[in-house]
Amino acid sequence: MPTTVLGQNQYGKAECRVVKVVRDGTTHHIKDLNVSVSLSGEMDEVHYSGSNANVLPTDTTKNTVYAFAKEHGIASAEDFATVLARHFVAGQEQIHRARIRVEEYAWDRIGGPGHSFVRTGQETRLAQVTFDGGHVEVVSGLKDLTVLNSTGSEFWGYAKDTYTTLPETHDRILATDVSARWRHGWTGAPDSPAPDWDASYARAKTHILQAFAETYSLSLQQTMFRMGTRVIEQDPDVEEIRFSLPNKHHFLVDMERFGLKNETDAPDGAVYLAADRPYGLIEATILRDGAEQLIPADLTTL
Amino acid sequence: MPTTVLGQNQYGKAECRVVKVVRDGTTHHIKDLNVSVSLSGEMDEVHYSGSNANVLPTDTTKNTVYAFAKEHGIASAEDFATVLARHFVAGQEQIHRARIRVEEYAWDRIGGPGHSFVRTGQETRLAQVTFDGGHVEVVSGLKDLTVLNSTGSEFWGYAKDTYTTLPETHDRILATDVSARWRHGWTGAPDSPAPDWDASYARAKTHILQAFAETYSLSLQQTMFRMGTRVIEQDPDVEEIRFSLPNKHHFLVDMERFGLKNETDAPDGAVYLAADRPYGLIEATILRDGAEQLIPADLTTL
Amino acid sequence: MPTTVLGQNQYGKAECRVVKVVRDGTTHHIKDLNVSVSLSGEMDEVHYSGSNANVLPTDTTKNTVYAFAKEHGIASAEDFATVLARHFVAGQEQIHRARIRVEEYAWDRIGGPGHSFVRTGQETRLAQVTFDGGHVEVVSGLKDLTVLNSTGSEFWGYAKDTYTTLPETHDRILATDVSARWRHGWTGAPDSPAPDWDASYARAKTHILQAFAETYSLSLQQTMFRMGTRVIEQDPDVEEIRFSLPNKHHFLVDMERFGLKNETDAPDGAVYLAADRPYGLIEATILRDGAEQLIPADLTTL
Amino acid sequence: MPTTVLGQNQYGKAECRVVKVVRDGTTHHIKDLNVSVSLSGEMDEVHYSGSNANVLPTDTTKNTVYAFAKEHGIASAEDFATVLARHFVAGQEQIHRARIRVEEYAWDRIGGPGHSFVRTGQETRLAQVTFDGGHVEVVSGLKDLTVLNSTGSEFWGYAKDTYTTLPETHDRILATDVSARWRHGWTGAPDSPAPDWDASYARAKTHILQAFAETYSLSLQQTMFRMGTRVIEQDPDVEEIRFSLPNKHHFLVDMERFGLKNETDAPDGAVYLAADRPYGLIEATILRDGAEQLIPADLTTL
Repeated sequence: MPTTVLGQNQYGKAECRVVKVVRDGTTHHIKDLNVSVSLSGEMDEVHYSGSNANVLPTDTTKNTVYAFAKEHGIASAEDFATVLARHFVAGQEQIHRARIRVEEYAWDRIGGPGHSFVRTGQETRLAQVTFDGGHVEVVSGLKDLTVLNSTGSEFWGYAKDTYTTLPETHDRILATDVSARWRHGWTGAPDSPAPDWDASYARAKTHILQAFAETYSLSLQQTMFRMGTRVIEQDPDVEEIRFSLPNKHHFLVDMERFGLKNETDAPDGAVYLAADRPYGLIEATILRDGAEQLIPADLTTL
Repeated sequence: MPTTVLGQNQYGKAECRVVKVVRDGTTHHIKDLNVSVSLSGEMDEVHYSGSNANVLPTDTTKNTVYAFAKEHGIASAEDFATVLARHFVAGQEQIHRARIRVEEYAWDRIGGPGHSFVRTGQETRLAQVTFDGGHVEVVSGLKDLTVLNSTGSEFWGYAKDTYTTLPETHDRILATDVSARWRHGWTGAPDSPAPDWDASYARAKTHILQAFAETYSLSLQQTMFRMGTRVIEQDPDVEEIRFSLPNKHHFLVDMERFGLKNETDAPDGAVYLAADRPYGLIEATILRDGAEQLIPADLTTL
Repeated sequence: MPTTVLGQNQYGKAECRVVKVVRDGTTHHIKDLNVSVSLSGEMDEVHYSGSNANVLPTDTTKNTVYAFAKEHGIASAEDFATVLARHFVAGQEQIHRARIRVEEYAWDRIGGPGHSFVRTGQETRLAQVTFDGGHVEVVSGLKDLTVLNSTGSEFWGYAKDTYTTLPETHDRILATDVSARWRHGWTGAPDSPAPDWDASYARAKTHILQAFAETYSLSLQQTMFRMGTRVIEQDPDVEEIRFSLPNKHHFLVDMERFGLKNETDAPDGAVYLAADRPYGLIEATILRDGAEQLIPADLTTL
Repeated sequence: MPTTVLGQNQYGKAECRVVKVVRDGTTHHIKDLNVSVSLSGEMDEVHYSGSNANVLPTDTTKNTVYAFAKEHGIASAEDFATVLARHFVAGQEQIHRARIRVEEYAWDRIGGPGHSFVRTGQETRLAQVTFDGGHVEVVSGLKDLTVLNSTGSEFWGYAKDTYTTLPETHDRILATDVSARWRHGWTGAPDSPAPDWDASYARAKTHILQAFAETYSLSLQQTMFRMGTRVIEQDPDVEEIRFSLPNKHHFLVDMERFGLKNETDAPDGAVYLAADRPYGLIEATILRDGAEQLIPADLTTL
């Protein structure tokens, strides 16, 4: 008699590195993706007895990623993931859900139009598409977008207990690596055209940056909420957004020990120590009023 | 009129690196932890208006981690996390939930008893304790436990489609980096003594290794299910376990191109290419019959 | 009788993370550095007997980095390192040589002039200054500048042996992460003004990128030599430059297995697999005619 | 007229991941290597004109690594690298020097003899063999061997200047990640049998650990010198050894701020903060009396 049962399970090929080059005369266009496939369905037997009858090999899912980049092209990370997700569920009866995750790396041109590129190196764009046979769920996102305000940030008036030693401050550096995921309302219904994903992404990034820059901040939570609100307000298709924001501490170095004053607003500037660990970690979901919260609390990438 | 509302949110200090040394004469004992605190509760205002009145600073949570290592000691990762989680909820009315995550690094002694140590470097032990004011939830785990079977693994009889090109095999290397989390049934009720966490952890690791070694494998899913079942069968307090297992491919190198035969069972051995990306990714929860599934599908660390 | 003697030795504090903010009204300027100090001199005793009488603590060298950022400012990575290197040799009789290494991270502004920044994320700028009491040696550099040509690269006509199976190609992707170090002729003589380091760096980066883009490449070695030659030709102060260039392979995916043609110049584009390991590694020094070769063969950072 | 000339150059394939399994009945033996090849010789033309006539492709060097693992086996990292280095110089007239670098990962058995392994995860073993047509140079080494003494370390009596604020201490934690390279005297002369490399490596590691544990330390430099001396004294074939040792600071946490005493020798133990950056970096070569110093000052791996 079995004492254990199988719960949620998924499998697939992770981190397929796909680069697509399309030539338009001497002007080339490049897409640089890292694609991970995760499939679920009637998979009891492979766990219980090792029968692979229902298992489309992960090697096949990898081949499909490359083949589809050829056959269907990569209009955008979200479009490509949608085509893949629909394919796996439609193509194999026993597969009931497919989740495709994409990381996208951006490239700038060296000089004008041509075939030479330099990686921007800034944030990594993210897309996740899940298809369960009925609805498509699209979550876009980004990670490793490092931002810093050198003033316009305070932190005071907080709760205190026996272990509180932090002095209040009315002028500090606020810096973080933005990691964000936002869920779209579009569900892939037949009569409903998909958003322009690239335009949507560009808008989201712009508003995250602008809200970060324009918010006079009393807490990183406040700044985060404004960033999320801006994204939702500016894009009617965004239902919710989740952030995970490390508070990258920059400590004003105490120089009185060697007879120097190191003050924030000194004419010759202020010197900070950029710390690694530990760091504050501020996380929240901001929802369009009435929207359901579906993005998990802990953000993951692949 | 606000168009957005606050959803799930949490904050705290991540990655507090704590080392505790206890001297027993000339024999020293060491605990080496990385502790992350995450608090939730009545935190609307800090997001909406930036008022920090309800915010115990993350700096304070860091101080508490170090102070508690002194005041309460570190009996085990799980014990230490439990004391911390209870403290934050009990100590601040507006905090309703505390989640403490711990990474633990193991050290061996150099020579016999004394004060000299070398880091084992094998897996990282994990513990997560969540307290919501009523119940304690303890999830133990490990990551980066790299294992390999050089035979006793097959893969054949799988589903095929247009993109399937993988040849079947009856003798392959099976290798993975085990990442596992298991949830305990113990909920911290007053009359219920906590398990011996260190003994429980040692048992879980042993059974994961043994099940990996002893399972003749037709699929990594099958091996995974056996590993999970063994852990649950051997420890009455474990309710569920989740694995995330990369299939670290080792490809038998094709040497016919340069006139050599490279066969698995050749007397002079076989040569494999250990690949990086892409890799299969096999994930599942194994549940004690009747248990609730609470560990999230995507495993995270900090 | 000692059987061993002390050879080359150096010590100091590595990876001091310094951020300097200078306010010019509401417009702020930021410098973000990672500074490592390495000192050598009369250090026999600290190795032989443990006497620290000649050892200026690494903690003091760290303090000096922060204090000098305040007292002397950070005109550029090279200027700052020069001031530090001179100080340690001048300030402590027993220290005969100081080597300062700097990594610099670049920031763009969010919106116009103000106090909000986003990290560019592209290459990391490097500077190394060594002072031995007489001459200053300045080596500038960069790392992690990822570039790609989607055509204009061939590889054929190479030597062959028993193990050669690579097909020749007349159209391939050429991609690399540029790591480069270039040594300046300036030696800090009293009557010799230092170069404008920021302008010099900008020129070097521009010419590396342009030479990469403009070279029709028969080998990565050829492209590398052109990049180095361009930097030296365009800057009379550069004596030599060394590159370490991984050949980041992009393999045209074989799709005949699933009935597709995947050709470089197909109208609907070509699909490549971006590989991780192994990678070609191409390294060389290019010298101004008559210059001495002083940059070590193996590039290091910190 | 050329303004630039080619200096030192080398090329090859880096990070070939080779796993060799040899079956002895049901007991399997495993070797797990990461091999990098670097070749030099008459390579002017490939840099100047792009002619590859003298270039054995890096792809061929990769194939050779795998083929030789089959044809010659892997007796040890050093033996394998020696066979490879000799081959490239002997096999191609235009190649005058070959340098092979190997990283080796160790595995323990799960249970008794069989085919199941768990990676030890401790240090990575290193070997570098260079052959120039005449002599073989063998450098062995290791990295990432993390060690800690919880007492038996002092630091006082050091030089002081304006920026010195560090308090002296007579009881501190001393911890480091050992990175070491030691050069052998054996040069591959025809009548000179090679050392037993595995036994030599085991001895070196043991003596490094023992010297670390047994040295009452007044400075990390002193401990380092003892470690090097022990390796040289115990192995007549070792000519020199170089260390690069980060001083991984463990700061006794100041708890007076919250009314606690945190003292090194308290009966209930002491609590330390393990810091990341900056760290001290202590480097030196220890030489057998009369030996030449050939290991570069900055250690590199691949």
